[in-house]
Amino acid sequence: MSKSNSVGIVKPKTFINSEPLKLDCGKTLESYELVYETYGALNRKKNNAILVCHALSGNHHLAGKYSTKDKYPGWWDNLIGPGKPLDTNKFFVIGVNNLGGSHGSSGPKTLNPKTKKIWGSKFPVVTVPDWVNSQKALINSLGITKLAGVLGGSLGGMQAIQWSIQYPECIKHAIVIAAAANLTAQNIAFNEVARQSILTDPDFNKGDYYIKNQIPKRGLRLARMLGHITYLSDDVMGTKFGRKIKNKSVKYKFDTEFEIESYLNYQADKFANEFDANTYIRMTKALDYFDPAQSNIKNLSNIFKKIRAEFLVISFTSDWRFSPDRSKEIVKALLDNKIKTSYAEIHASSGHDAFLMNDAHYHSILENYFKKIYKSL
Amino acid sequence: MSKSNSVGIVKPKTFINSEPLKLDCGKTLESYELVYETYGALNRKKNNAILVCHALSGNHHLAGKYSTKDKYPGWWDNLIGPGKPLDTNKFFVIGVNNLGGSHGSSGPKTLNPKTKKIWGSKFPVVTVPDWVNSQKALINSLGITKLAGVLGGSLGGMQAIQWSIQYPECIKHAIVIAAAANLTAQNIAFNEVARQSILTDPDFNKGDYYIKNQIPKRGLRLARMLGHITYLSDDVMGTKFGRKIKNKSVKYKFDTEFEIESYLNYQADKFANEFDANTYIRMTKALDYFDPAQSNIKNLSNIFKKIRAEFLVISFTSDWRFSPDRSKEIVKALLDNKIKTSYAEIHASSGHDAFLMNDAHYHSILENYFKKIYKSL
Repeated sequence: MSKSNSVGIVKPKTFINSEPLKLDCGKTLESYELVYETYGALNRKKNNAILVCHALSGNHHLAGKYSTKDKYPGWWDNLIGPGKPLDTNKFFVIGVNNLGGSHGSSGPKTLNPKTKKIWGSKFPVVTVPDWVNSQKALINSLGITKLAGVLGGSLGGMQAIQWSIQYPECIKHAIVIAAAANLTAQNIAFNEVARQSILTDPDFNKGDYYIKNQIPKRGLRLARMLGHITYLSDDVMGTKFGRKIKNKSVKYKFDTEFEIESYLNYQADKFANEFDANTYIRMTKALDYFDPAQSNIKNLSNIFKKIRAEFLVISFTSDWRFSPDRSKEIVKALLDNKIKTSYAEIHASSGHDAFLMNDAHYHSILENYFKKIYKSL
Repeated sequence: MSKSNSVGIVKPKTFINSEPLKLDCGKTLESYELVYETYGALNRKKNNAILVCHALSGNHHLAGKYSTKDKYPGWWDNLIGPGKPLDTNKFFVIGVNNLGGSHGSSGPKTLNPKTKKIWGSKFPVVTVPDWVNSQKALINSLGITKLAGVLGGSLGGMQAIQWSIQYPECIKHAIVIAAAANLTAQNIAFNEVARQSILTDPDFNKGDYYIKNQIPKRGLRLARMLGHITYLSDDVMGTKFGRKIKNKSVKYKFDTEFEIESYLNYQADKFANEFDANTYIRMTKALDYFDPAQSNIKNLSNIFKKIRAEFLVISFTSDWRFSPDRSKEIVKALLDNKIKTSYAEIHASSGHDAFLMNDAHYHSILENYFKKIYKSL
């Protein structure tokens, strides 16, 4: 069970890497920056580090607050902290904003060091393997040669899988939550609608909207609304909102009338003011491209041969974006290779978003798994 | 089984009604036109008429072609024709474009007879009960007092239900396919994203885009792409498209690369050139508002007390937009009232769109049901 203890006031750091990074797309970043946060202390053996990878709209700010005035803590504060399931009294926890992100790491809205101009549309398309390479450089800079674990939900879980394939000797445990070994056609289809929303927004200006200072809010709003529908289950939407209307009766207008409409529009407005459109479309591309088995799930067992890490895989019954069946494909390929694997399918009503929730059963499984990792250090 | 016989070359007709129609929204249409088609002949007793109601993007052109040069026949040609499951040698079949439609009936892009100007944004929001009232006037004009049946899929099925409640003495059979007694929060959410796509398209011009002759294609495209995802099942998308890419390898750009993306974009372009955005948002509102049980499904049995028609209800296993469970709610409420009800859950992989497909099992059930209706005439 998670406790109320917080990591307290935290401060992001910046890792500047002047080693060039060759990307999957063929381009090379001559240098780049990664913004990250750490919680807890790295032990003498430097073997208690847990890297937490973020999903589409996440960032490096996992836990704690930047000032006492902050309304909300980091996005995984219910999991990470002293005495919490991922216990910062025991582990050195690292959160990093991915390359191409919109929270400080090198990305479309940062300066291209070569041209001294904002990258904008010129920032390359980055992939999960690219992220893992950049994260590896960060880990090296901290003097860590082997991570005790890589943890992530959704797109974050894909990064944990990729770590185990790409740097098999550098990861002891992969904790893969609400993820899949690749996207289905339906997943890609939803991403494409989100991308088209942004790409066709006249304010997108082919990705170079910073100079005009007119951000493609309409496109981002639509992308976020659509995303939200796929993060929640039909059931939880029914329970939370159902067909409830805001006022006493409907108005036969195109204003928002049902509570579910208000909720989506509120979330959309909030997101469009905070998130960068160029980052959004890049994140969806990273999702679409992730496919270690090269579109043949039967090939996954083969790819997993090189894995040396142990796995905890978790899925949620009501997650229709990455259903339990998709997690079982991962589990099967792991077991085919006799990799030590724990799997839990959590009964949860909140859909894909369940991985962010404070569910007692879910958190106790994580807590026990991290205790096991700690014992084996 | 459906046969290859066609109703041949058909011609739409127009019903002009100068009787005012009071709408649910409180406004009144002083007069209106409905474009419709008929196939087969009305018998002497005028008791062999089947009204076919269309769904969101449908229209009155159910079967046959307008000229031999037409590439495609009407949208339900596989079902309707001489010797087909809905046999036009036996039945007088009526297809009508709903009020607010974009295929000739009074709607946003037609002239307001009062002002002699295009309705545009001023065309009122219409509801399923409004449509049923207008359809009843059309039926009256044809000298029909009681329909042998009202048939519809999706939003069309909702109209069949509404007919049985609103004019219980005027309908002998309701054939309700892939429908529900109301939308879920998730259904409404998808509709709201589609509406926001259109409403926020700068070319929408608050609905008065005809005068500028600049139609909101971007919004319509997004609405259609999203619609398509919900019409198809995850499985059929996987089988049809999977993760197949158009070219040999991905390009790390934001062009369409996966076949599912091309398919959606192709469908979107086609639709945006044919369909009216003002109609689209009105159709989604009619869907959202339809709710005879007033948001309390338990209340449905109560509402169904007045029904005199017999029912055939059909659902499809892979339809996640209107799942079989939603059809069963209708069936339960019918059985609570001891209404003669047949129910079939068809094993089909194509999702919601299955109701338009030429599936042998599905069509044989319809054929047998229509034979039963014919015998009882």
